[in-house]
Amino acid sequence: MTFYDSPINESLPGAGQAVRAVTNVPSAEYPRVYADGRAIFQLRMPSAKSVQLEGGQGLCQGPIPMVKNAEGVWNLTIGPSATGFHYYWFNVDGVAINDPGSETFFGYGRETSGIEIPDPMTIDTDLPNVPLDPVNPAFYDPHDGPQGHLEERWYLSRTTGKWRRSFVYKPAGYDEIANSNTRYPVLYLQHGAGEDETGWGRQGRVNFILDNHINPRPARGLFAMFRGPAGPKTRPMIVVMDNDYATYAKQGSNSEDRDPSSHYLSPGIEAFGSVVINDLIPMIDHTYRTIADREHRAMAGLSLGAMETMAVALTHLDTFAYIGAFSLPFFGKIPSRPPKPQSSRPVFPLFDPKTAYEGVFADAANFNQKVHLLWFGAGTAEVRLNNDLRHNIAKLTAQGIKPVLYQSPGTAHEWLTWRRCLSDFAPRLFQS
Amino acid sequence: MTFYDSPINESLPGAGQAVRAVTNVPSAEYPRVYADGRAIFQLRMPSAKSVQLEGGQGLCQGPIPMVKNAEGVWNLTIGPSATGFHYYWFNVDGVAINDPGSETFFGYGRETSGIEIPDPMTIDTDLPNVPLDPVNPAFYDPHDGPQGHLEERWYLSRTTGKWRRSFVYKPAGYDEIANSNTRYPVLYLQHGAGEDETGWGRQGRVNFILDNHINPRPARGLFAMFRGPAGPKTRPMIVVMDNDYATYAKQGSNSEDRDPSSHYLSPGIEAFGSVVINDLIPMIDHTYRTIADREHRAMAGLSLGAMETMAVALTHLDTFAYIGAFSLPFFGKIPSRPPKPQSSRPVFPLFDPKTAYEGVFADAANFNQKVHLLWFGAGTAEVRLNNDLRHNIAKLTAQGIKPVLYQSPGTAHEWLTWRRCLSDFAPRLFQS
Repeated sequence: MTFYDSPINESLPGAGQAVRAVTNVPSAEYPRVYADGRAIFQLRMPSAKSVQLEGGQGLCQGPIPMVKNAEGVWNLTIGPSATGFHYYWFNVDGVAINDPGSETFFGYGRETSGIEIPDPMTIDTDLPNVPLDPVNPAFYDPHDGPQGHLEERWYLSRTTGKWRRSFVYKPAGYDEIANSNTRYPVLYLQHGAGEDETGWGRQGRVNFILDNHINPRPARGLFAMFRGPAGPKTRPMIVVMDNDYATYAKQGSNSEDRDPSSHYLSPGIEAFGSVVINDLIPMIDHTYRTIADREHRAMAGLSLGAMETMAVALTHLDTFAYIGAFSLPFFGKIPSRPPKPQSSRPVFPLFDPKTAYEGVFADAANFNQKVHLLWFGAGTAEVRLNNDLRHNIAKLTAQGIKPVLYQSPGTAHEWLTWRRCLSDFAPRLFQS
Repeated sequence: MTFYDSPINESLPGAGQAVRAVTNVPSAEYPRVYADGRAIFQLRMPSAKSVQLEGGQGLCQGPIPMVKNAEGVWNLTIGPSATGFHYYWFNVDGVAINDPGSETFFGYGRETSGIEIPDPMTIDTDLPNVPLDPVNPAFYDPHDGPQGHLEERWYLSRTTGKWRRSFVYKPAGYDEIANSNTRYPVLYLQHGAGEDETGWGRQGRVNFILDNHINPRPARGLFAMFRGPAGPKTRPMIVVMDNDYATYAKQGSNSEDRDPSSHYLSPGIEAFGSVVINDLIPMIDHTYRTIADREHRAMAGLSLGAMETMAVALTHLDTFAYIGAFSLPFFGKIPSRPPKPQSSRPVFPLFDPKTAYEGVFADAANFNQKVHLLWFGAGTAEVRLNNDLRHNIAKLTAQGIKPVLYQSPGTAHEWLTWRRCLSDFAPRLFQS
């Protein structure tokens, strides 16, 4: 990823004030983005009969036809789109093709093109020659202060019998000799369905978001709103990002288990829970200078990762004291999927706060004493999910639980929602 | 990447004893690899008129036509191919398309599909149901001993005025409190043209190779040959992998500078050298527990990275005492490229050991006293490059220099050559 280092090439026809997206590979002139959130896409594919742009919520709501020019290049300008990261691809005569001009990001169970739409608030539009100059870096951009960093950590899981890769964010100062006896709390942070353990580091910008909270830049203007609540300083923490998917070593075939949709079902989450509790946490506590108790351990995740977080953390309150669910698709028991050839749509049981998650909410006073934060967040454009969320949070509140609800203005089931969720959630951790 | 966790699906037509490549995305049944090095490729593209497989040396020497079946799926079986990692893509009616079934790797200046052909020596072919079971992990596979790990490190370069990303390998034990006063030597390791700073960590398996040397598994049979020379134990070291490409902050436009071919010219390597000497090394020495002197600093690289290593390290012997060039395309002055519309093939000047690299070889006794290792390696299938290499090494030897030459049996300009180069080179470092 390149950061705002693309000058305008005025000679490109139709490019106007648009510049290369930061998610482009270095040599690619397209896609290009305007300061107002519009984006131009191109694909050279002379032999294709039809090409459409497709992508995630927030970028386009369904396929958008592209137009071929005399050179066999298909073109399209869309937007303004939501700020932040969006998956996209081209539908070429019915087949999904990535954009050779884009970096790829793991989503939809495969490598997928992605585009970062810059935040207009970060852009000084008065500078005609440098329209995307980062006058105000966004809360998810790097800054030139103390930096934490991500590291890749492989480990052999006894649950699955396989090597697994996780990514670990260590806050600035962790490696300094002066801190060699300092221990840190840990947040376990999960990606969504079809994504993998690279998601939070690449699409999510987890390291920059945490850096910006732990060692804040002087806030200017509107940016202060994303800096988390005024009050206690965000505590330096370790963040561990593992893969959502797991299968027991001796059970079933991989081809069955690796269908992402199957992991909405209980067995996948059960095996994942075993990885977290029996393999991942012991490895992390052995390897890093953690504070290895429940008071200094949090779990959060987005979408499927939120379901996993709820299923695993709420049934292991001896392990976790802080819980965050970003864009949680539903509450309660993992739904079962009717056997084919019936509809494969899962059956979502109603959320019963007295019995769900092994009855953890039944004794609210005990729960509130143990759990220092039960945090929910979603984008306001996730309409159905958000309605369910508020409905179920009302049930929880009636039960005597004290959940926190965050709403990301105008965003859908997309990464800007989850970057903002993390940015609101992380400063609230480990303050008790 | 998944490690040997793919059971046979006998029901797949024609799949036989082939299993999914470890470089596949989790859900993809194709490409598949046989224990003998053959590979099966598939692409669903009903509307295409012609599809060819193309890829790096070692996989295929030019486009290979695929055959469409009645369902619009194009098929091809090739090989046996060389063990190790190969780039590939599909040429669909003249346009390069990645394989949706493969992970992507940064090569050729863009995201590119890749396939890992397993080493037959690592496979127990007597087990009919688990043909790729890693009975003997290769020298570049993970093992369940002490592990080092890669971390991602962003820094703001004063040379370029931009954020740069590097990857840093830290050996096992670096983070243990018991070692918090231990300092380590550093190897700076560069990728090839069209690749980026992710290359050594992903295509190169740098962490597993170093782990296997620093904490060797008990060697079995033929594997001992890749364990480096008997004798001193490989010294735990930090490895830093930065991007080959750099341009001065205020010079030229990016679109010009970012054409990878332009970086064969002096200005690109000059700016890169400034990044290494003025930005990267000070950042690394400030951030990590390094031994910050020339006796504990090495530089190496492959192809373009080898050219850069020679250009930078040989002109900064106050900074480096160990130098490695993997598949060095040529020696001496960086060639100039004739202005268009003439041929764009660079003009390679003859290597003069008395004057090249600012005359560093002129006083051989002084050079030999300062440089503890000048190491060259290449694949025997890189015929022209290898001929030039041996010719120029003979010139160096005649000059009184004592270079080391390693030949990778049967491999071309490909990653198995460079994994082997690293595996021979690294154990020789920092032993003086």
